[in-house]
Amino acid sequence: MSTAAASLSATEIADYCRQTAADARQASTELRVLDTAVKNRWLMESADALVDSVETIVAANALDLEAAPGYGLTEAAIDRLRLDGQRIGGIAQALREIAMLGDPVGEILDGFTRPGGLQIVKKRVPLGVVFFIYESRPNVTADASAICVKSGNAVILRGGKEAIHSSQAIVDLLCAAAKNCGVPEKAVQLVATTDRAAVGEFLKLNDLIDVAIPRGGEGLIRRVSAEATMPVIKHFDGNCHVYVDESAEIEMAVKIIENAKCQRMGVCNACESLLIHSAIAEKALPAIAQRLQKHQIVMHVDDRAAPLVSGGVPATQDDWGREYLGPEISIAVVDSIDQAIEHINQYGSHHTDAIVTSNLRAAESFTAGVDSSAVMVNASTRFNDGGVFGLGAEIGISTDKFHARGPCGLRELTTYKYVVRGDGHIRE
Amino acid sequence: MSTAAASLSATEIADYCRQTAADARQASTELRVLDTAVKNRWLMESADALVDSVETIVAANALDLEAAPGYGLTEAAIDRLRLDGQRIGGIAQALREIAMLGDPVGEILDGFTRPGGLQIVKKRVPLGVVFFIYESRPNVTADASAICVKSGNAVILRGGKEAIHSSQAIVDLLCAAAKNCGVPEKAVQLVATTDRAAVGEFLKLNDLIDVAIPRGGEGLIRRVSAEATMPVIKHFDGNCHVYVDESAEIEMAVKIIENAKCQRMGVCNACESLLIHSAIAEKALPAIAQRLQKHQIVMHVDDRAAPLVSGGVPATQDDWGREYLGPEISIAVVDSIDQAIEHINQYGSHHTDAIVTSNLRAAESFTAGVDSSAVMVNASTRFNDGGVFGLGAEIGISTDKFHARGPCGLRELTTYKYVVRGDGHIRE
Repeated sequence: MSTAAASLSATEIADYCRQTAADARQASTELRVLDTAVKNRWLMESADALVDSVETIVAANALDLEAAPGYGLTEAAIDRLRLDGQRIGGIAQALREIAMLGDPVGEILDGFTRPGGLQIVKKRVPLGVVFFIYESRPNVTADASAICVKSGNAVILRGGKEAIHSSQAIVDLLCAAAKNCGVPEKAVQLVATTDRAAVGEFLKLNDLIDVAIPRGGEGLIRRVSAEATMPVIKHFDGNCHVYVDESAEIEMAVKIIENAKCQRMGVCNACESLLIHSAIAEKALPAIAQRLQKHQIVMHVDDRAAPLVSGGVPATQDDWGREYLGPEISIAVVDSIDQAIEHINQYGSHHTDAIVTSNLRAAESFTAGVDSSAVMVNASTRFNDGGVFGLGAEIGISTDKFHARGPCGLRELTTYKYVVRGDGHIRE
Repeated sequence: MSTAAASLSATEIADYCRQTAADARQASTELRVLDTAVKNRWLMESADALVDSVETIVAANALDLEAAPGYGLTEAAIDRLRLDGQRIGGIAQALREIAMLGDPVGEILDGFTRPGGLQIVKKRVPLGVVFFIYESRPNVTADASAICVKSGNAVILRGGKEAIHSSQAIVDLLCAAAKNCGVPEKAVQLVATTDRAAVGEFLKLNDLIDVAIPRGGEGLIRRVSAEATMPVIKHFDGNCHVYVDESAEIEMAVKIIENAKCQRMGVCNACESLLIHSAIAEKALPAIAQRLQKHQIVMHVDDRAAPLVSGGVPATQDDWGREYLGPEISIAVVDSIDQAIEHINQYGSHHTDAIVTSNLRAAESFTAGVDSSAVMVNASTRFNDGGVFGLGAEIGISTDKFHARGPCGLRELTTYKYVVRGDGHIRE
């Protein structure tokens, strides 16, 4: 099916989606038992093919760039879409790094010999078929394919229309390398139609697809969560907090808040809210506010913070739950660490929250009490990231508690099975 | 709210459900950090209280037994509902055994020190609030409460109306013991109304409830899966297979099939389908069929098995996917182990499947190729059970791949968080 086939009937779309998912399911039965060396060879050959085909990819990318203004893309978005030799080299390098990671498939998670001699082993196995829905960046096409296949899964890629030609060129190269290396050709499939209805059709197929992973705006994630008949790994918003404890070193607090808020603003692990203990607010808050002001951060302050923050604006109730993703922050004064923990669990998004403290007991209370995927002590919230944690590449950061929490890498795309060996054992 | 309050308005039910869930959420914040010794003391005191209160429980149980014929319960179901001193002793003993199990909360799953000195620890934490919907056996009320609280979760119990008085008497004792021991009183709550609408209301509350676990008939599980806005751990049907390989020892095959099919028929890990390699069928199948006939098993046979099974009835296409839960089995002849694996992955329910073989390579292919929660070599399918595996008590057997697969014990009711310690670390 060509990428130009835009005007399909509802039945044609449904048939196409089912066939694509059935092909993925078939590929997954081969991928489940595929040798690690074969998967790694495919990653290395794909990396070489990308580098060797810079011209082809750049030509496909030119079609996307040409269409971009028609899709209303901003200059920044168009820049993220643009591919050149250097960026393609970066994509290839990411594949080589995934080849270097250990294969999670077959890892033995647990094992026991039971009274009577039954031998039980709990073994890591792939999930099966991943349906990945993402927005426009073409490097994600290669990354997601690599992570899924390395973890033994087939993947159905539904990329944004803005990058469809670039993504198709990349997938063509990955599929050609697959054929060469003995990886099933249908291990990686890019959905050929950009019709929105196709997403709905795939989300019905829980007999063929094991997990849906949406990555993009909140609207996309809500739609996928609402329609999916299979489990979803969600990547919702990050309303991340930094709490400055009464025992904090002020210079450290200033540095961590500046980094967590300002180092990169449009990301889910950026700080959106600052809580500060009343015992240290008078000394620390003016210094913190001054530093944030240098970065033109709008500060939404509660009544008690207001006198200590020059140029602050009054916070409304809404501010405590907001993910600004830009140069804004909410600031509140609290009277105890328990109050800070309660505030974070109530208004936060269970993503990443940090404490700045020199008190051991405060660190312990905070890390135990805050119900988030990552809790930081004396470190910036910006560190919640699969690469930084040393988990290797990630397909997203889960804000769910179920199955996977935080960075989702190779292991998070697996499940397990019990393998039980007996010698004619029967149950009495 | 009394258990007799049956005629509530829709608004009253919605308010009651939200309040119950909010109380559970509040209790879960205390349970998350509750000392293991406190949880174990509660389990031991609850066990003692059950034994000391046999008369009270039996009196409550008498009300359920009196109402049972009105609910159309069979004699067997009424027998399962009945409590006496011995059965209450068994329930108490199960609580003591759960006290003896290790606490999963706080277990360190992984950890690294990253370049630059950031220390990362991946730590097991409770899920939060469990909504457990189950049918009539009153012992499940105590079991589920114990497993949830031991793993640091608050639980909302929605038991069947058939056991409501018995369950209430048990929960009253558990809550009194909680008060004594310093466990939050709302850690265990039994839903006071048996109105079906209450289930729907709870299933909307994904802001307060982390997971729904239905245990009962397929209709219940389908309803909960369809309506739930939070993740669901499902316990669907078990269409379990035994495959007799060409290299099987015939006597072992006979014994394993007899046990897997006949030792207990109404359970999810009983064998429902027999596949046999054509090279051994002539020798082995008559012996197997003869043994099954002794147990009055109806055998649904394919064309090639028919001449080898006296008294078999022709199988229809439907038979391959059926979970009989009774004295029936389907039987098919296959020409290779690959054909057996393909059949099982197509028609099975990914629950438990077994191979009987003396060939090492066949054992490896089968355990790698069959996509089920447990794969048995030379052992009965009946062994797929948390107790048998040594995992301790279980709240169900998951037929999902996501989050938990197979027996769900204490660990399966947990998630994890990353705790990151720095010394003023910021991201460059």
